[in-house]
Amino acid sequence: MTMEQRLAAYAEMTEKGLEKYLQSPNEVNYPQIFEATRYSALAGGKRLRPALVFEFCRISGGDPEKALPFACALEMIHTYSLIHDDLPCMDNDDLRRGKPTNHKVFGEATAVLAGDALLTRAFEVALDRENTAELDAETVLCAAKALADAAGMDGMIGGQVIDMDAENKQIGLDRLLLLQQLKTGCLIRAGARMGCILGGATAEQMEAADRYAAKIGLAFQIEDDLLDIEGDEAVLGKPIGSDAASGKSTFPGLLGAEECRSMIRRLTDDAIESLGAFEDSGFLRELAESLTSRKS
Amino acid sequence: MTMEQRLAAYAEMTEKGLEKYLQSPNEVNYPQIFEATRYSALAGGKRLRPALVFEFCRISGGDPEKALPFACALEMIHTYSLIHDDLPCMDNDDLRRGKPTNHKVFGEATAVLAGDALLTRAFEVALDRENTAELDAETVLCAAKALADAAGMDGMIGGQVIDMDAENKQIGLDRLLLLQQLKTGCLIRAGARMGCILGGATAEQMEAADRYAAKIGLAFQIEDDLLDIEGDEAVLGKPIGSDAASGKSTFPGLLGAEECRSMIRRLTDDAIESLGAFEDSGFLRELAESLTSRKS
Repeated sequence: MTMEQRLAAYAEMTEKGLEKYLQSPNEVNYPQIFEATRYSALAGGKRLRPALVFEFCRISGGDPEKALPFACALEMIHTYSLIHDDLPCMDNDDLRRGKPTNHKVFGEATAVLAGDALLTRAFEVALDRENTAELDAETVLCAAKALADAAGMDGMIGGQVIDMDAENKQIGLDRLLLLQQLKTGCLIRAGARMGCILGGATAEQMEAADRYAAKIGLAFQIEDDLLDIEGDEAVLGKPIGSDAASGKSTFPGLLGAEECRSMIRRLTDDAIESLGAFEDSGFLRELAESLTSRKS
Repeated sequence: MTMEQRLAAYAEMTEKGLEKYLQSPNEVNYPQIFEATRYSALAGGKRLRPALVFEFCRISGGDPEKALPFACALEMIHTYSLIHDDLPCMDNDDLRRGKPTNHKVFGEATAVLAGDALLTRAFEVALDRENTAELDAETVLCAAKALADAAGMDGMIGGQVIDMDAENKQIGLDRLLLLQQLKTGCLIRAGARMGCILGGATAEQMEAADRYAAKIGLAFQIEDDLLDIEGDEAVLGKPIGSDAASGKSTFPGLLGAEECRSMIRRLTDDAIESLGAFEDSGFLRELAESLTSRKS
């Protein structure tokens, strides 16, 4: 199986899982919230975070199928964060992945609730013993706790707070690094961590997986900033130049595009090096490489 | 110990717990989100939901101290729902418990994030084995799952969706009952349920506790609607007449005040009757009675 095939297979597992987990008998009574959550959760996307859960579970010796509720829970939390990020009181974005943002379609009140609903559903799904019957309870708790920590105000939300705070003012590199480590890094690392927990990784492997995820997470974000300057709007599915327009500090803005490219190279090399702790790491190696040359 | 004394003791446990759980070493880097969450979580309130967790744990034979993380998690979720409810795109309220609402003090973006943060923190706290070391993992999972289900779109959020949808239009009694059972009932029932799970209640006790909570939850909501017509603004801490002003359907509007009062009486009697499944139910009996004559 090529890297692309495996990534596509993981994405398909994720989408089927999301479809299943976002249904409810209550839809007859109030359909709009279920439609709103599925609208954003099933809007495509790379499904990078779920892929990390599945793959780290697999190369730690576990069955990726068992990781499904956690992979979907992580993607739900990622999706909720995008919906709330796009709100008029936050980034006020009209387009996301080439489609109108959630509040543009369903209105602001429903978009707030759809974000809340996805965040809550993540835990409904991860904590449901019908979804995790083959795992022991301590393992489930440990994985779900990793997810909660990464998503909270000591993780992703903290990054979002710094981001809001940094609008229309210049921040230094240290602050921008903290912002990105929290805002993007924490959820990506949670993907690797949950995969390792579910697959039964050793402590050494757990640490290596965390290093890998932290490095590709940062490389991913620097690449994102570069795409906002140099990308193709049609491929990207959102307008370019939005960082500059909203007065955000970015890695290219602070370091220049060339230094950014060599940082991405170094981070990718470091990420790949840390995979030495695993035997079957071809997919993750190629995945890291592919992120350095992505177009969207 | 009188009912009032025990209720005050539970409220104090809750407040100390919330203070502890809402701290973080990251406050030095971005203080505002921690301040914003504490502002609303520590703004007083009856702490009814945590009291149910503690007391059902106690009368099921457990140590109420062990229920602390779950009592606080439940109150965090209740608080987040108030913050998001008050947002300009939702109910657009300026006052809550006699104080300016979260977005009035911290701005809309931070209020959205403070709600998200409290919702996430609830699971960070409930899933932290350092907080639940004396409980077995299956018990923790079961209690945390009850909380997630009650808070999600098949629970509280569903009620909120129906509520938004019902603004400025007349809805019938069935729809209003569904709205309230979801919006207020689910979290109150989750309090009783978690207490029973943590205390090791029998299946029969669990069912009785659920009946009690469902009945007092509905009585509580009907009383709330009455207070919005007949209450004292200064005691209530919010303007009266806001339901009518926003065109919301209410129990008094549909049934008249007199029928509401006799419904509250019947619901309270039924709630108290279901306490027969427990031996030491004086507190819960008095609590149910006290809710029928409350002023705020």
